[in-house]
Amino acid sequence: MELLKKRICETGQVIGDRIIKVDGFLNHQIDIALLNEIGKEFKARFVSSQITKILTIEASGIGIACITAQYFKVPVLFAKKNEASNLDKDVYSSEVYSFTKDKTYNVQVAKKFLAPTDKVLIIDDFLANGNAVQGLLDIVKQSGAQTLGVGIVIEKSFQQGRKKISDENIQLESLAIIKELRQGQIIFG
Amino acid sequence: MELLKKRICETGQVIGDRIIKVDGFLNHQIDIALLNEIGKEFKARFVSSQITKILTIEASGIGIACITAQYFKVPVLFAKKNEASNLDKDVYSSEVYSFTKDKTYNVQVAKKFLAPTDKVLIIDDFLANGNAVQGLLDIVKQSGAQTLGVGIVIEKSFQQGRKKISDENIQLESLAIIKELRQGQIIFG
Repeated sequence: MELLKKRICETGQVIGDRIIKVDGFLNHQIDIALLNEIGKEFKARFVSSQITKILTIEASGIGIACITAQYFKVPVLFAKKNEASNLDKDVYSSEVYSFTKDKTYNVQVAKKFLAPTDKVLIIDDFLANGNAVQGLLDIVKQSGAQTLGVGIVIEKSFQQGRKKISDENIQLESLAIIKELRQGQIIFG
Repeated sequence: MELLKKRICETGQVIGDRIIKVDGFLNHQIDIALLNEIGKEFKARFVSSQITKILTIEASGIGIACITAQYFKVPVLFAKKNEASNLDKDVYSSEVYSFTKDKTYNVQVAKKFLAPTDKVLIIDDFLANGNAVQGLLDIVKQSGAQTLGVGIVIEKSFQQGRKKISDENIQLESLAIIKELRQGQIIFG
């Protein structure tokens, strides 16, 4: 998605060879007009899917999921992150390790909001090591629902996320794929 | 806002005399069509204001703020919650005590995203004790920007939030005001 890549180049901040900060338009300040273009692009890429629900994870995924959901006309469900383990019987949960924060979260979704008949599109801002998406895939599996696709705004393809998801044989669409961060430069794949 | 009150009555779960759970449409699963009506209503109520930015707080405020921002054609900025105190010189921060979680958070916004020329609309899902909104008002003050309004989806008027904000002489609009929760019944104000 050229508009997105252009914005990443113009305002993204490269830190070392692994981190790109996009807090100016995606995950702290949010450019809603750009998010609308992102939503339309996800709709175009998952066009044949009979999505019934968009699943994301707090916090950065929520805005993207809500704007995107307007084009699919389905509800959004966002998984909650808890630091403590919680054995609540009314939730599906999965443990997710965050490299950014060096913490393991217990990610949870209330059982009543995922039915075996649901066809789920998972949306998130970043795909890096893939742990968050794997946690969400795990939750969908527990519910008996089906994940029809994973839509990512920015993928860092030099990390392991894609491989983990490809193993699941699910349509994965990343709107910008960064294959390398080198000396402050962003190299798209 | 009648549509919202109707939904609260139909699907809200009253717990004791202080808690109303609306996780079916507002803060876990999100009804995007309803959020669009909420966004339009905020636009109608803050019609004369020259809003330049919508400020909210993660996580439940983000979806509401993003959908609402489409009607104001301004960016969203969401404050981040950190448990640890953080003396980062590049952020405005304010301490916020959460009754729900019995924790004090350090709420932060990067300085570069709030300018003294900004006219801010604060949006959140609930107004109860008002601590979150007070933290956001404090952050806007630190930046030299001006808060033109506070838009709340559900206010529990039997708690102290409105009084704290009224003292600031800022336009406060709550789309549903609950004055009492009694024996499982919701009494609107």
